This record gives sequence, C-alpha cells and structure tokens, in this order.
Amino acid sequence: MNTPATRLYHLALSPYCRKVRLVLGEKKIEVELVEERFWEAGSEIARRNPAGRVPVLRHEGRLMAESQAIVEYLDETVPNPPLMPTTALERYEVRRLCAWFDDKFNAEVTRPVMTERVWKKVMKTGYPDSREIKSGLKAIKDHMDYLASLLEGRKWLAGNQLTLADFTAAAHLSCLDYISDVDWDRSGVLRDWYATIKSRPCFRAVLADQVPGIPPAPHYAVLDF
Amino acid sequence: MNTPATRLYHLALSPYCRKVRLVLGEKKIEVELVEERFWEAGSEIARRNPAGRVPVLRHEGRLMAESQAIVEYLDETVPNPPLMPTTALERYEVRRLCAWFDDKFNAEVTRPVMTERVWKKVMKTGYPDSREIKSGLKAIKDHMDYLASLLEGRKWLAGNQLTLADFTAAAHLSCLDYISDVDWDRSGVLRDWYATIKSRPCFRAVLADQVPGIPPAPHYAVLDF
Repeated sequence: MNTPATRLYHLALSPYCRKVRLVLGEKKIEVELVEERFWEAGSEIARRNPAGRVPVLRHEGRLMAESQAIVEYLDETVPNPPLMPTTALERYEVRRLCAWFDDKFNAEVTRPVMTERVWKKVMKTGYPDSREIKSGLKAIKDHMDYLASLLEGRKWLAGNQLTLADFTAAAHLSCLDYISDVDWDRSGVLRDWYATIKSRPCFRAVLADQVPGIPPAPHYAVLDF
Repeated sequence: MNTPATRLYHLALSPYCRKVRLVLGEKKIEVELVEERFWEAGSEIARRNPAGRVPVLRHEGRLMAESQAIVEYLDETVPNPPLMPTTALERYEVRRLCAWFDDKFNAEVTRPVMTERVWKKVMKTGYPDSREIKSGLKAIKDHMDYLASLLEGRKWLAGNQLTLADFTAAAHLSCLDYISDVDWDRSGVLRDWYATIKSRPCFRAVLADQVPGIPPAPHYAVLDF
C-alpha cells in the first residue's frame, strides 16, 4: 500500500497556510492543495480540525492542525534543509519571532487589513471598514522598522541562518503584498531580504496564486520589484 | 561574578505569565516576581520587550519574551523534569494544544472574560460589557467538552506524560477559576486532571496570588475543591 499523498486544506491568502506551503516547498515535500471554504454550508472542516480552521495538513495518513506545530514537526522529521538553528538560544529567537508575526503582527496588521480588504469580500460578510485598514497600515510601519533594525545586524531575521522565522514573516508580508499594502520603499534591507526569500523555488506556487475577484498587485510576482 | 538572578516581569492574572511561572516552578528555577503595570505612565516595558507586553523573563543575563518560546527554551536547557515528549509526533501534539489554548481558547474565552471582569477594573478603562462575558462563558463549555474527550483516552492532555500542554491549559483555566468562571461540575475527568496538576508544588505560588480589589473565589486555592 502506498503512503497517502500529502494534502493541504488551505486558503490562498491565509498567512498560516502560506507558512506551511513555504516550509513544505523548502523541504521538497509534494503537496496537493485543496481550497477549504470553511464558512460555507456543507464544509467538513470540523471533522478535519476541531478548531474549525485552516491550515489542515493530511500527512503520513494523519490530519494535522496549527501552523507552528506543523512546521516544527516537518523540520524535525525532514531535516534537510534545517530551518531551526542548533542552539537552544537561537531556537528561542526563532520561536519568539514566529510568535511576533503569528500573534502580534497578525492582530495589529494582517488580520485587520486582510479582513477588511479580502475576507469580507470572499466570505460576503459586508463592506470594508476603512478605520480598520488605516489602523493596520499605520501599525505596519513600526513593524517594518523593527524588522529593518533586526536585519541591520543579521543576514536573516533570527540570525545568520534561514529559519522558520523568515518563512513566517514572509507568509504574512506576502499576503499583504498581494493587495499592495507593503511599502517596500520604507527599508532597503527589508526589501533585499524579501527579494531574496521571494526568489526561492518554494515561493513559486505562492506567487502564482490568483484569488477570483481580487487581482494581485502588478509587482506581486515580480522577483526584481 | 554571580549569574544574575532570574526575574519575571509579570501580571498575576495573565495566563501567559502563569505558564512561565508554572514551568519555572516545575524546573525548580527560583524566580523573583516583579509586577509590570505596562499601561501606566513611566513603565519601562518597551525597553524590556519591543512587543510591549508581559511576560518578560530576565534569565542568564538576557531578557526573553513570548511565553511559548520561553518555556520551550527552559525545557531544552533544564531537562529535568522533561515537559516535552521524545517523539516528533508527540511534540507536535503538545504544540498543537499549546496553540489551542494560547490562541483559540484565549480569543474565545480567556480574553473576553478576563478583559471585562479583571483588566478593565485593574487598568481603569471602563465598565464590563456583559455580552462579552456571556460569549466567553458560552464558548468555554465546548472547550471543556473537548478537553474532557481528550482526557477520556489519555492520562494528560497531550498523551500519557505531563507536558507543556498541561501547564498551558492550567494557566488559562486557573485565571478563570480565580474569578470563579470554570464550572468544574461539567466534567469529572477534567476536574480530576485539574485537581492533580493544582496539587503540584509549582502551583503553590499561583494559588497564593491576591489581586487587590479582586478577591479569589473561595474554592480557588483549595486542593480538594
């Protein structure tokens, strides 16, 4: 009997789904993508994930949820290339930055901006609230300055090695970049960092995403933006 | 020169701070607790943590933030007792449940209930909104049923070993229990699990917490509740 293929139940513009896709790509694990419109009648998401949300990864015959738990598992079980450093202190820094993006950056930037500009349209739940968008676009400035300050002294976000922190950050920023909400002129080091990670093979499928009714920004898939 | 003592900048009823306190206690790391009222003028939180929030741990001469990153670091550097299992699949399950509590349970239960009942009073930011409290107390029922279903087949939440998942869950539930918002009659297995973890020495300091103006529920510190 063959091992069942790896399948990801996802949404194209969810940063948590993108994080898993990028890590799967980096580890060269082939994946079948299935769009999971969990808010629609007849969705079977609750059967796949009691938390009722994406991403859900079917992998090695199991259903797995929670993006950070999934990517740490992938890194532990598919060691090449390693996306976690070797010392406990460096791993702490990777996890701190993953939490920074998945929790703080998401609450202050990704969620308000994407909810108003994308999810309300996709899920048909109303019109965008411009105050929320404004608040997110104000907050992203401080975040970009903080990332730039990290990159002044480091090659990658958590140190001198490419890690899960870079893919977590790139997952969030690439969703916002799809709708043209990242002002790359704000920081040269941050733009260079994003250009480098964006040109990796794992990014190709993410750059090919097309969400019906929401065309990507013209520069979105351009590697030399 | 002595290694600087370990110090935790915290708030008594923050589940993220409690999670770090419980793991420090379990690892027998002595800690000095410093209340961090980060919303007050003159707070130096931004200097200690660019994310502007608690917990912040001063440990081995460094300032560390983000509770999950901290406890994973503590578990990796102070191996006894181990609070993570040995296989990648079991570790995945621990991390999935930590995310369940720190993200989903917090958004649906801890944050709305504690914001309205505790933080608005402590931070003097207004009167409680009873709809938020009601929504949190409705949501906790499904969460308790889910936890109970896990505990039907396992000794501890993530398997047959005490892990970070148990301390994460207990950190959230103990904050809600302080204000009497956990209906332990709902599930015998969940009550037994909480009675067992509550009787561990690491829990003592947490059970001794007293927040001015917000007295704990009468049963809060009782081991046989």
